[in-house]
Amino acid sequence: MDRVYNFSSGPAMLPESVLQRAQSEFMNYDGCGVSVMELGSDTPEFLGIIRKAEENLRSLMNIPGNYKILFLQGGSSMQFSAIPMNLLSDHKCADYVVSGQHSKSAYIEAKKHGDIVIAASSAGATPAFSTVPRLERSDFRPDADYVHICYDNPIYGTTFPEIPDTGAIPLVADMSSYLLSQPIDINKFALIYASAHQCIGIAGMTIVIVRDDIIGSPLPGTPGVLDYKFLASNDIKYDTPPIWSIYIANLVFEWIQSIGGLVEIKRRNERKASLLYDYLDDQVYYTAPVDKKCRSMVNVIFLTGSAELDRKFIAEAKEEGLLNLAGDNSTGGIRASIYNGMPYDGALKLRTFMRKFADENPKLI
Amino acid sequence: MDRVYNFSSGPAMLPESVLQRAQSEFMNYDGCGVSVMELGSDTPEFLGIIRKAEENLRSLMNIPGNYKILFLQGGSSMQFSAIPMNLLSDHKCADYVVSGQHSKSAYIEAKKHGDIVIAASSAGATPAFSTVPRLERSDFRPDADYVHICYDNPIYGTTFPEIPDTGAIPLVADMSSYLLSQPIDINKFALIYASAHQCIGIAGMTIVIVRDDIIGSPLPGTPGVLDYKFLASNDIKYDTPPIWSIYIANLVFEWIQSIGGLVEIKRRNERKASLLYDYLDDQVYYTAPVDKKCRSMVNVIFLTGSAELDRKFIAEAKEEGLLNLAGDNSTGGIRASIYNGMPYDGALKLRTFMRKFADENPKLI
Repeated sequence: MDRVYNFSSGPAMLPESVLQRAQSEFMNYDGCGVSVMELGSDTPEFLGIIRKAEENLRSLMNIPGNYKILFLQGGSSMQFSAIPMNLLSDHKCADYVVSGQHSKSAYIEAKKHGDIVIAASSAGATPAFSTVPRLERSDFRPDADYVHICYDNPIYGTTFPEIPDTGAIPLVADMSSYLLSQPIDINKFALIYASAHQCIGIAGMTIVIVRDDIIGSPLPGTPGVLDYKFLASNDIKYDTPPIWSIYIANLVFEWIQSIGGLVEIKRRNERKASLLYDYLDDQVYYTAPVDKKCRSMVNVIFLTGSAELDRKFIAEAKEEGLLNLAGDNSTGGIRASIYNGMPYDGALKLRTFMRKFADENPKLI
Repeated sequence: MDRVYNFSSGPAMLPESVLQRAQSEFMNYDGCGVSVMELGSDTPEFLGIIRKAEENLRSLMNIPGNYKILFLQGGSSMQFSAIPMNLLSDHKCADYVVSGQHSKSAYIEAKKHGDIVIAASSAGATPAFSTVPRLERSDFRPDADYVHICYDNPIYGTTFPEIPDTGAIPLVADMSSYLLSQPIDINKFALIYASAHQCIGIAGMTIVIVRDDIIGSPLPGTPGVLDYKFLASNDIKYDTPPIWSIYIANLVFEWIQSIGGLVEIKRRNERKASLLYDYLDDQVYYTAPVDKKCRSMVNVIFLTGSAELDRKFIAEAKEEGLLNLAGDNSTGGIRASIYNGMPYDGALKLRTFMRKFADENPKLI
């Protein structure tokens, strides 16, 4: 099979030009005689890569100097623990918004460390988590150390339509499957984090962007690899960075810059999403279960109404080179993840296939 | 510069045939239409890779069924925390052997969680850590939950010449820079762990091999990403595995199998090490500071006796395509890491250069 359109929700499709560049310099990076994968973490070549990665990300997102950027080992679930362990103060109190599986997992981890409550949840929506909670300042305890939200929920296809107002309480957001899909105002957040394997790069790295003033007093027993202050000291010898993942992320940063930055990325992502959502809103064969006000721009969910037809759709789409369209195991249905790496033509080909499938397959209900 | 001999202590040189294979299937793995880096963690392709990786490692090392093999995110420093958090019992008591910087870091992390003592140390050797402690059963507290050692110490060029006898106390070993450099008897250990970027693959993954009976009762507050029982349940959706790192490791496993397994790897590594140590023992220009009884087979350390000449050696070696020969910042001197990926010809070329350098540069002391 030739290269296909891969609608996986993560690890996800990478821009083809990024893959081609990585392949071309695979054996010998920048003429230094070794592969990036073989670079010692204290070599000038790797230090150059990580410095450029930080500069490029800071420039793409307009991140002010009072925010640290950490390129860390592991996935976002590691941050589910790091956040309470670093951010809880002596009275150990934080409020969580539950808008899906990831935010629930984050809440469960945080509960190990303090007085953690669910300030709001969309579990009761029909279907469950098909919207995000509408939030008011009064939903949160004024003395909460922070409020935690999950910005984009790839299992359910939802996104917060606007940044919640938490007043003086620091806002912390899991931005996996959101970060770099469009511009955000980092100044509204005390900390954001994102695993790389949706919009940024590959599995094995998480980016944490954290405001200086909220780090530095971890709970007793906090592991060194979870201590932001220690990690921000950049003791590369203590914990060798995920070098290859940082390299790929930087290639993606440079690709985003080359096409016009996050404004252009947003335009492209909106265009792909509109292609699918406009079609969905204009027909009756498929159902789009998500509350229109909080539809995700990068995870588009729809159903035929029959599990059997959904399976047929997914299988026949695969034959056409449209891969990994199955919804999450817990929800079923069909999910098209159309992150940064998905070309417009992929979304277009999917829409064409959706039309064809609807024409050829009578509804089963 | 063409491909060179890279003596970095980690991330380290990979076998060239492994790099070539990864490059050749970089854009399209096994005809599935996507790169390994783009594979969802629940795809048949990735599940096939991780299953083969486990089977291959089990076969290479003769690992019995009562040991779990975990391919985890992060580096060995994450396990410095996971080990006490999983293995300490109610009385929270463990004994650490300090033979270098890594074992000291492991001890410091463990101390956050219980009554942790240094049972033995070679810090007092001259030079510091130029040998490993000689260990007797009586060095350990009989009620210790476990004994922790670091098997190979890349900063100092030492290795334990034999497996310490800890009697009934579970033995835990950091085998970063040792695992897969030669056969070991896993049955002598309750748990071993190793970051991948020395003998196994690339940065971003740690392998933990742990006996079933010692896991399952983590301390309260143990993060999910550090809980071995939870991790062994293989909930891939909770923590996306480091897919690319597992793929590269499996290519290395297959390469080791193809050349004759760990017996052949040991023969090759011994041959490279002998080339350098035999020369060092047969001349007076360079000093080999490490106790001969516990010389590392994969990290060979030597000095000219002058920091200036050491720097000249490292710089001129680089011109000859012999890269990254600087010792650790904390020790200075010269270090040749000759892990699995270093060909015999690399060690031979280094020896030839050592001779030439000694002939051309009068001692400065």
